[in-house]
Amino acid sequence: MKRYEALAEEIAQSIKSGVLKFGDRLPSVRQASTSRGVSPSTVFEAYYLLEARGLIRARERSGYYVAANSKSLPPEPEMPSQPDTHSKPVDVSNLVFEILGSIRQRDVIPFGSAFPSPQLFPLPRLARTMASSVQQMDPWSTVDDLTPGNANLRRQIALRYLADGVTIHTDEIVITNGALEALNLCLQAVTYPGDAVIIESPTFYASLQALERLALRAVEVPTHPREGIDLDALADALKRHQPKACWLMTNFQNPLGSLMPEEKKRALVELLTEHNVPLIEDDVYGELYFGGKRPLPAKAFDTKGIVMHCSSFSKCLAPGYRVGWVAPGRYTQAISRLKLTTSLSASAPAQAALAEYLTRGGYDRHLRQLRHTLSVQQNSVMEAVVRHFPAGTRATRPDGGYFLWLELPENVNTLEIHRQALSLGISIAPGPMFSAQRSFMNCLRLNYGHTWDKRAAEALATLGKLVTAAAEGNRALSAEQRNRK
Amino acid sequence: MKRYEALAEEIAQSIKSGVLKFGDRLPSVRQASTSRGVSPSTVFEAYYLLEARGLIRARERSGYYVAANSKSLPPEPEMPSQPDTHSKPVDVSNLVFEILGSIRQRDVIPFGSAFPSPQLFPLPRLARTMASSVQQMDPWSTVDDLTPGNANLRRQIALRYLADGVTIHTDEIVITNGALEALNLCLQAVTYPGDAVIIESPTFYASLQALERLALRAVEVPTHPREGIDLDALADALKRHQPKACWLMTNFQNPLGSLMPEEKKRALVELLTEHNVPLIEDDVYGELYFGGKRPLPAKAFDTKGIVMHCSSFSKCLAPGYRVGWVAPGRYTQAISRLKLTTSLSASAPAQAALAEYLTRGGYDRHLRQLRHTLSVQQNSVMEAVVRHFPAGTRATRPDGGYFLWLELPENVNTLEIHRQALSLGISIAPGPMFSAQRSFMNCLRLNYGHTWDKRAAEALATLGKLVTAAAEGNRALSAEQRNRK
Repeated sequence: MKRYEALAEEIAQSIKSGVLKFGDRLPSVRQASTSRGVSPSTVFEAYYLLEARGLIRARERSGYYVAANSKSLPPEPEMPSQPDTHSKPVDVSNLVFEILGSIRQRDVIPFGSAFPSPQLFPLPRLARTMASSVQQMDPWSTVDDLTPGNANLRRQIALRYLADGVTIHTDEIVITNGALEALNLCLQAVTYPGDAVIIESPTFYASLQALERLALRAVEVPTHPREGIDLDALADALKRHQPKACWLMTNFQNPLGSLMPEEKKRALVELLTEHNVPLIEDDVYGELYFGGKRPLPAKAFDTKGIVMHCSSFSKCLAPGYRVGWVAPGRYTQAISRLKLTTSLSASAPAQAALAEYLTRGGYDRHLRQLRHTLSVQQNSVMEAVVRHFPAGTRATRPDGGYFLWLELPENVNTLEIHRQALSLGISIAPGPMFSAQRSFMNCLRLNYGHTWDKRAAEALATLGKLVTAAAEGNRALSAEQRNRK
Repeated sequence: MKRYEALAEEIAQSIKSGVLKFGDRLPSVRQASTSRGVSPSTVFEAYYLLEARGLIRARERSGYYVAANSKSLPPEPEMPSQPDTHSKPVDVSNLVFEILGSIRQRDVIPFGSAFPSPQLFPLPRLARTMASSVQQMDPWSTVDDLTPGNANLRRQIALRYLADGVTIHTDEIVITNGALEALNLCLQAVTYPGDAVIIESPTFYASLQALERLALRAVEVPTHPREGIDLDALADALKRHQPKACWLMTNFQNPLGSLMPEEKKRALVELLTEHNVPLIEDDVYGELYFGGKRPLPAKAFDTKGIVMHCSSFSKCLAPGYRVGWVAPGRYTQAISRLKLTTSLSASAPAQAALAEYLTRGGYDRHLRQLRHTLSVQQNSVMEAVVRHFPAGTRATRPDGGYFLWLELPENVNTLEIHRQALSLGISIAPGPMFSAQRSFMNCLRLNYGHTWDKRAAEALATLGKLVTAAAEGNRALSAEQRNRK
């Protein structure tokens, strides 16, 4: 642990234990530096980290203050009750497409969006890198960069894993058109129509769509809002359904934001290895942690090659470039061949540009900034939720990513809220999108990856009013809506 | 018909009728211009076109001569006998991967390659276009360019069809990761495992791999080396197998190079419409015609929306960029949704660069040069085949594309030739790659899309020797091989 991390931890403990209270002003950087005998930059880094974790807040020109502590935050949602454990065919796509289609306009406030703001990414620098790398591209690279993909890019990805303590060989990495293609190829590689596949509940809707498209049967396993999939329920499902794969997110799950503890990841891999069931690990949010270090993927605990680990640059660096990858363990040849026969390879200029960007350095600096921005925005959105949402609202408190999951009072129908909000130019992602059984009717996913400005704050206040009105069965709001238009 | 085209046609007739004979010198450009009262550039264009069609050849500093006429060329292959008309599961991938994997090294003479030489493409200009377009990219285009894709690119594609007399609306065009993804999405959109699908015989191996992957059954219909799929056999297969789709290439089929006449395309679409069977049309070679105009796709005759027309820039402009498209008729929404759920969208910078390239102009100039180069190279390779291959060899004479299909004496096993040639640094594409039943054992596909130089000429001579030796059952060559090493 570095010095600034130790200092941050010490202050965090003081806040937790109540020594420092909501609204207390922290010593200035100069004071703290003198009193503790550390450099000003160490204090600054510690404050920066605490701010990122939402424990303190900067007020312009007046220093740092202790933020609203967790006791003033809404309670966290509990583990969903065991969903109906029969495996079943999936039919959710129409709902999902309808909702996604309705929220693609630029002028809608994107609380329902699946993407963070493109303005969070170093697109101008990336563009300059691409401009130079594409002009240096060897014509034959169009052949060389065929699947498994650009050799330098795959090496750079392997190096990053190594720095985080995960050994993945360059040869195991297959470049894909984003993580979505990687996940789909994995599913195709190990299933046949009619097979059962384990997914989380709630789950990322793309897994539901993939199951539906491939005529697979979903086995939904309850997932804890803080710690991820329930291993007892999983063990039970493995015995009952003989699934051909298990598809889940170990780090900052979409939509919950849950993060599986390391020991739980290890146990997960052991359990699946025992049943010889491949794990399709979606780790696209792993780099977006707010804590001190990157959480390990389940892949780190895989000794038998059963984990197909998928990730991409779309959420961290280069949305729209469509460059992802998979490290498919024992399925590497199968995935490579599937990729060749379904779409041949990823775009060569995009691969070359990202390889060059990673080689030149600067990605980690960008990521630190990105994580800081997201954590500050999470805090702002969380505070607004406290202010505007009705009693009985529960909210997750993810340590990374850019999604909050809200559980609203039971009588609130978020499909209805979605329609009302959209008519006011605000999108949300209603709970039923994340379940094969259209459960989670009173839940919604809230994207905090976009600029938190006056317009966003007003939109969240409006959303809070809609939810409050729905919870109270109060229809007075509709008059107000008419007046606004 | 333009003036130069009329002049070219007149000279072509003189050659066909024997008025002009092999080796005859044509009048100089100045002479012809004076005697016919046309401009020198008209004569030049006419000669250029005749050269492209292989009818005349330029000799450096000494003018144009009539080329070896078709009577001195090998005969064309005949229609394959009716393949076994049972539908059957496909198991060809291992063979195809083995062969493709073995021919990816740069130092192998690429007669077996599926790609033309990357040096035929304006990659430096494309790179400059991309350099400027990526730096002007609006960050939000990463959202806007999601499937169905970049609006300007789709408009430019629609405009090109319009110029060729085909009406395809911008809204019908869905951008994909190359034509290969487009074709696979089409197949997925209309089939379910176990369904029968009609393909050509011989067929592009990617269709076999797609059928295998999706657990579909292949119905192979004989395909004429010059005029494409046999409609009587197709009609019969439609009745017998109730297929869910028909996947074929109407223009310069891979591997045969066949070109369906317009009336045959019209009849094809009528026949499929009558049986309500969607046509998956792979038209990636349509722009590579050597004649006066672009052959129409079957899509041009579709009134009911049953044709899913796929193409790309990979064979004409931008290999490695992975930008293709599909105009899926009545299946447009289904394809768009499939694309969103399998890989979200094509790479935004690549889409933007191609849109900008097409908007700036110069694509047609490039294509004219490309067609000319390919037709000249076809001629050179054809002459070398005549010189070096044994009696009994038959060869197609495609009016476009970059593949020759050779039918060798019956006792020649091209899988064996493949192994021998590869050990000498020469690749071929053996016939069994193109059939679910591993037929066409004595056939091979020859790529003439690479530079025809001394090294290539020697390689083709060596290949001719291998084939001759095999045809004669002569094993003396193996001694020669040893001496060379």
